[in-house]
Amino acid sequence: MKVLVLLVAIIVGAAHECHGSEHGASFQIFPLRMKTGSGGHYIPEVSCASWRLGVEAHNVIEWKTVPLSCEGYIGNYILGDQYRSDSKTVNQQAYFYAKTLNITAKDVWVFDIDETSLSNLPYYAQHGFGVEPYNATAFNEWVELGEAPALPESQKLYKKLLSLGVKIVFLTGRPLDQKTVTVANLKRAGYNTWFKLILKDTSIYHGKTAVTYKSSERKKLEEEGYNIIGNIGDQWSDILGTNTGDRTFKLPDPMYYIS
Amino acid sequence: MKVLVLLVAIIVGAAHECHGSEHGASFQIFPLRMKTGSGGHYIPEVSCASWRLGVEAHNVIEWKTVPLSCEGYIGNYILGDQYRSDSKTVNQQAYFYAKTLNITAKDVWVFDIDETSLSNLPYYAQHGFGVEPYNATAFNEWVELGEAPALPESQKLYKKLLSLGVKIVFLTGRPLDQKTVTVANLKRAGYNTWFKLILKDTSIYHGKTAVTYKSSERKKLEEEGYNIIGNIGDQWSDILGTNTGDRTFKLPDPMYYIS
Repeated sequence: MKVLVLLVAIIVGAAHECHGSEHGASFQIFPLRMKTGSGGHYIPEVSCASWRLGVEAHNVIEWKTVPLSCEGYIGNYILGDQYRSDSKTVNQQAYFYAKTLNITAKDVWVFDIDETSLSNLPYYAQHGFGVEPYNATAFNEWVELGEAPALPESQKLYKKLLSLGVKIVFLTGRPLDQKTVTVANLKRAGYNTWFKLILKDTSIYHGKTAVTYKSSERKKLEEEGYNIIGNIGDQWSDILGTNTGDRTFKLPDPMYYIS
Repeated sequence: MKVLVLLVAIIVGAAHECHGSEHGASFQIFPLRMKTGSGGHYIPEVSCASWRLGVEAHNVIEWKTVPLSCEGYIGNYILGDQYRSDSKTVNQQAYFYAKTLNITAKDVWVFDIDETSLSNLPYYAQHGFGVEPYNATAFNEWVELGEAPALPESQKLYKKLLSLGVKIVFLTGRPLDQKTVTVANLKRAGYNTWFKLILKDTSIYHGKTAVTYKSSERKKLEEEGYNIIGNIGDQWSDILGTNTGDRTFKLPDPMYYIS
């Protein structure tokens, strides 16, 4: 009996400790302890979480691939509830904001496509979740299938914005020659209507960054008299630059970086 | 013995499950599963993590207090290893960037003070980690003690920038009448030297946002011929606006929001 009680105590203790490690801290709030010097132990999950936060808050920039040691962490994140929950929070904030506005016929909302409206997870799950360098040939083969599923939380926002009377503009880095498959994929995934679908004219924007291309296309929209009331994307390059819109929303994407 | 083995299995199982829940996902990578509809179970830790990410990536804005249900989560985060690790990653990125530059005598780096250079955790740990509404009287009493400790990872950056020959400018929302205690606190905490310490002249900036005040003071610096090569703060209002600097860095702060 004593052994049992002891073991139960260990189980409870372990669960407790462990629950605590969810936040990289013991679960009980312990007295303030600011470590000085080079001390402090950093377990991989803690560091990979910091890397991901660094990416999302635009502190870690211009990176080529996910750190090799973070493949498992990013895979778990992106396939799990946290990615879905993080996406939901961003889209909810966007809707709470949109709801407060008096929408006119000139109001548009800009949606990026990849990892914003459509998910390429079926591709990335087969390619190391961003650990492998970008392979244009393989990725374009996937895009040509036209099978990317909707990101469900973004799609909810899309539908709510439509019902508020907001015009939807898709603005994507996909090249013009992927227009047919992109239209088909959007419709297949449940995005049935939009005001404009803007793909990248590589004869104009060859070698230009996404920031330059997207800023330029948003400027055209505003010159045509439209107000960009909102702008949502998974890359900072979707929402930086000029004519960014009245409010911007950054969806999570720890798998790749586009400047 | 059978009981023992079973219990050990439970312990290991519990630890495993639990470790997995760190990322809101089972630890093993499971097949791609995009939930549709309103389904999906959100445990508080998952939602609080989403709220925190939303804050850090500037999706959740203009909030007054930490959600009540997240007090335990934020307390654990801020007192634990993850906050330290997150701060380290940001400061490291800042240093990696600074190292690549050829520093001149006109190059300055702007540091915010509260939750950037100095930590008010001893105060916030007594005041619900941001769950309680801001209490100016109580907070100013704490500031007047001049006992805020350094944020160790930021201080490392400060020292490295000094050794690179970068001029340090502290730009804080603290009012001018807290200058004496702020100087004393900075020195006590190990910030021994700086080029300028700019506090808020409330006769000029009364009722103005931090974005307006800080942009205006940075503009003056640039008009005096200084280049702001970097700018670091815990609030988006430290790094948005005009004259933001060549690169900006957002330190974590899930405890309060200043616009």
